[in-house]
Amino acid sequence: VIEVADIDALADIPADQIAGKIVFFNKRMLATRDGQGYSDTVKARSRGPVLASRKGAVAVVVRSVGTSSDRIAHTGALKYKDDAPKIPAIAISNADADIVAYQIAQEVPVTLHMKLTSRVLPDTRSANVVGEITGSSKKNEIVLLGAHLDSWDLGTGAIDDGTGVAIVIEVARLIRDAGLKPDRTIRVVLFANEEFGLSGAKQYAEAHAGQLEEHIVGMESDLGSGRIWRFESKVAEEFLPVVRAIYSVIEPLDIVLGENEAKGGADFSPMRKLGMPVLGLNHDATEYFSYHHTASDTLDKVDSENLKQAVAAFAAVTWLAANMDTTFGLLEPEEPEEEW
Amino acid sequence: VIEVADIDALADIPADQIAGKIVFFNKRMLATRDGQGYSDTVKARSRGPVLASRKGAVAVVVRSVGTSSDRIAHTGALKYKDDAPKIPAIAISNADADIVAYQIAQEVPVTLHMKLTSRVLPDTRSANVVGEITGSSKKNEIVLLGAHLDSWDLGTGAIDDGTGVAIVIEVARLIRDAGLKPDRTIRVVLFANEEFGLSGAKQYAEAHAGQLEEHIVGMESDLGSGRIWRFESKVAEEFLPVVRAIYSVIEPLDIVLGENEAKGGADFSPMRKLGMPVLGLNHDATEYFSYHHTASDTLDKVDSENLKQAVAAFAAVTWLAANMDTTFGLLEPEEPEEEW
Repeated sequence: VIEVADIDALADIPADQIAGKIVFFNKRMLATRDGQGYSDTVKARSRGPVLASRKGAVAVVVRSVGTSSDRIAHTGALKYKDDAPKIPAIAISNADADIVAYQIAQEVPVTLHMKLTSRVLPDTRSANVVGEITGSSKKNEIVLLGAHLDSWDLGTGAIDDGTGVAIVIEVARLIRDAGLKPDRTIRVVLFANEEFGLSGAKQYAEAHAGQLEEHIVGMESDLGSGRIWRFESKVAEEFLPVVRAIYSVIEPLDIVLGENEAKGGADFSPMRKLGMPVLGLNHDATEYFSYHHTASDTLDKVDSENLKQAVAAFAAVTWLAANMDTTFGLLEPEEPEEEW
Repeated sequence: VIEVADIDALADIPADQIAGKIVFFNKRMLATRDGQGYSDTVKARSRGPVLASRKGAVAVVVRSVGTSSDRIAHTGALKYKDDAPKIPAIAISNADADIVAYQIAQEVPVTLHMKLTSRVLPDTRSANVVGEITGSSKKNEIVLLGAHLDSWDLGTGAIDDGTGVAIVIEVARLIRDAGLKPDRTIRVVLFANEEFGLSGAKQYAEAHAGQLEEHIVGMESDLGSGRIWRFESKVAEEFLPVVRAIYSVIEPLDIVLGENEAKGGADFSPMRKLGMPVLGLNHDATEYFSYHHTASDTLDKVDSENLKQAVAAFAAVTWLAANMDTTFGLLEPEEPEEEW
């Protein structure tokens, strides 16, 4: 076993020190409100196996990309590539990672017995689920709300992304039941297969690439069910005053205004890369990653008061975006991601 | 499946409503500093199977007697009796118990599939481990420190009772390394098999019943590794001023003085019932029962600063008890527990 902190540390080690070994990625994820700790560590899981395999490693062990103190490790997607043997890869809980790290620090030989039972099954057909409140005066202009229907099957997917689905449906229900008629169309998209490659999101972008200008803005709820603590955007710079005007309405919900660097949620990333503006209503994710992608993602983690606050924030922003005089413009299309 | 809160609720239900059913004990354990939540719920596990069996139940399911929000259920001893069939009994996590309770509340038939793999193996020989610092002027008078060596094998037993063992050994080490000579003998007993029937504790009491007056006082650390927040006693009433005098020394460690109702820890209960006074240095157990008796009882749960505070408290009380002019008298022997 050879221990490295992360994929950057692995990159610095010559292949002859990796060949034939198990690579142990041992960077602890930090609990943060904005989920940055996840971004800082998740590549060990998603890319680590290929990067280690390219240097001749025989397997990969990842300190669970999660903040729990129980003995349950998270799961999640990894990507194999054709140029590297598909080596086995597992995550172990923080407590177990502590023990492996301790053994390595003792400079004694460390042996790991790995038993993997996961299998890759053939693809099957699924579908995005789409519902709309048709706009009155600008029905061809669309305000998009997103969440995803799939979840990792260890738990029930209550917070990833059951509550996201609940929030965006509830926003539409509130507007309909209030008898309100938005100028623009409000479209709720429940995406298929976010977790295992964004197929629903990619399909949506492929199908709607020709109607980019009709997609005024997208916003997704996919970071649990915590209170919304920040409102952020990614819109054309000249429309930032519109963002601030919307923010003034939700500020009393104890929400701060973030930067114009929003990602819009995984499911809207293909549309954002084409140029669709996005808004972000950021759930407090401090506790989210103690349950995310584990057997503990269950309904008892949902606080209904937090959920109501999130619905209020999403509903207000949706309504304002659907009725404002202006749009958010379009973004510059993004360059394709660097190959790794 | 028939749902009951606890064994008192079960007692109120006629046998013909229980016969042939699975009894589901569904009382949630509360997290409290003093561990009272455990006392309030644990009998569902320890006695529930026999009490349900006597009414004809076919199995028992217990909402995990623990405060965690993960999907890991606790384990622990239950007692079968000869007058009731040995029916299977399991604990399920709080999240799973929520789902069963929800299903029952829907008034639909609820079916549970139980797969138990636990086995009762033959008894084997074990031993208490005893170490002493021999007293100088009163070497036949003993101040007893206790903890237990065994643990449930799902985790590593770090907090139940690894840290207890560490604390009492460290107290002895500190006194020895400081070159101090106590008047009385300080005896550290690491008990065998606390978890599965107190055999080491019972054996100790059996072996020393004739030397009751030599056992000045006993105190055990067996409630995790949290800070000591309370000092309590069970001594003859006339010696309470001595307890208060000792307390005045440890009060600066941010410890409150409790009642004269201490139990002294499970391993000293047989001696206490005979009449040995006990003291209690109570660990803050607010988080303890999120890990207790589960796979998550591992070393990462131990905060070394809390542990140092606990050692300081135990060391001070031990030293004072070993050198004070008085004893704590003897307690009235306790009546045997009511049969259930």
